[in-house]
Amino acid sequence: MDIISIHNYTMDIIQEAAERIRKSFSQKVEIETKADANDLVTNIDKETEMFLIEKIKQYDTNHRILGEEGMSHENISNLDGVVWIVDPIDGTTNFIRQQRNFTISIGIYENGVGKLGYIYDIVRDELFYGIEGQGAYINNVRMNRLEKLPLNEALIGINASWAVKNKRINSERVGELIRYVRGTRSYGSATIECMLVATGKLDAYMSMRLSPWDIAAAAVIAKEVGAEFTTLKGEPINLLHQDTFIIANASIRQEIIEQYVELLPVEIK
Amino acid sequence: MDIISIHNYTMDIIQEAAERIRKSFSQKVEIETKADANDLVTNIDKETEMFLIEKIKQYDTNHRILGEEGMSHENISNLDGVVWIVDPIDGTTNFIRQQRNFTISIGIYENGVGKLGYIYDIVRDELFYGIEGQGAYINNVRMNRLEKLPLNEALIGINASWAVKNKRINSERVGELIRYVRGTRSYGSATIECMLVATGKLDAYMSMRLSPWDIAAAAVIAKEVGAEFTTLKGEPINLLHQDTFIIANASIRQEIIEQYVELLPVEIK
Repeated sequence: MDIISIHNYTMDIIQEAAERIRKSFSQKVEIETKADANDLVTNIDKETEMFLIEKIKQYDTNHRILGEEGMSHENISNLDGVVWIVDPIDGTTNFIRQQRNFTISIGIYENGVGKLGYIYDIVRDELFYGIEGQGAYINNVRMNRLEKLPLNEALIGINASWAVKNKRINSERVGELIRYVRGTRSYGSATIECMLVATGKLDAYMSMRLSPWDIAAAAVIAKEVGAEFTTLKGEPINLLHQDTFIIANASIRQEIIEQYVELLPVEIK
Repeated sequence: MDIISIHNYTMDIIQEAAERIRKSFSQKVEIETKADANDLVTNIDKETEMFLIEKIKQYDTNHRILGEEGMSHENISNLDGVVWIVDPIDGTTNFIRQQRNFTISIGIYENGVGKLGYIYDIVRDELFYGIEGQGAYINNVRMNRLEKLPLNEALIGINASWAVKNKRINSERVGELIRYVRGTRSYGSATIECMLVATGKLDAYMSMRLSPWDIAAAAVIAKEVGAEFTTLKGEPINLLHQDTFIIANASIRQEIIEQYVELLPVEIK
């Protein structure tokens, strides 16, 4: 894998994709719902994914693509070879309602190892990227490694819905965490929240249900600044299925999981 | 009250104050805690408030000032005459930790009536203002009046802490609201959340405890686009003390209060 060639190519196509999304701001966007009524997709998500798929296949027809909207129609059941994990618009509800707080996210994995990660917050014009072992950058400026802090001074990204009684996590324990930390925030885009952690603007972000395209790019970038990411069981993330997720400053990840996370038994249907 | 003169003057001093805050990004900021360990204040909050007080007194020594940091040492027990209600930095924790998502907020009231409101998101360079009966603007572009929507399609700004059992509001009912709406967000700055509602990027924002300087400017701006704001009892806001608060698209404010808000009896100490 020619890291420099693929890096330059990805920097180009992500800018092109961004320009296409920017143009859509002045157009009427077509909105559909997916499985869940609150899970939205637009023609712009699909067109952007198609654009990225075409460009990736032009680069190397042997590279496989796992995309949120499934436009490549590839059945990815393993991470052998080179796999691009793509979310054309992470934060689609924000894209529709706010025209901000969404990103393009591209993670590039070789035999399951994260090699390159790109997250572009188009409206803020912040392009984050990480190259395995080479560091992480925002708009080509090197990102610092994270400094330690105690949990009671932490800002945590968590959606309020996990503090409400639910089938996945003990909400009372989540409530204790919320009361213990300095504050909580919620921005509606996993990639933005991961990059806030990677830049020390949040100290942790957790969710009960994230998909590979929500975290593949972020994981590559986060690793380069010393942020830790695992499932809420403390296990390595798996990029082939949906799972729980936490990314955090290394000084507090384990404490959060051990002291405040109690996952509930999955019901057998 | 000479609305045009005071408007031009305020536009100038808010830009000057912003420039001082921008310069502080490259300096070491001094941080203190207030009553609560998570309620932070910096030398920049205080210096910015002092700067604004001096400028306001230069404009008219009879104008009184109610500021978050209390630097004017005026005892404001009524809203007679002209009162400027000032928050030099709304979102101080964000200012310290994120260097974004904070604002300067200035509301100007005459005999208790909101005449002018200014909220400046410095980092995003979005200056919102409203002039009573004359409309509201972002960077001098007229803001649209809000369109109706059903509550189940709404994005709601609410901090996760109100979904956790607390002494002020029935958290289970809050949980029902969180489950019913399209999604929730939390940005850590009341003025930013109010302006997201005023621009239709959120549909409601509620808090159990806001102070006059958190909402004085926002109320003037919000009124001009048809957003409604009251206490969580549905009563008019009072700018002389802390209270509960909701600002919302007019199509959903009453439904939220009637169906999902159950305030708990205040304990007598």
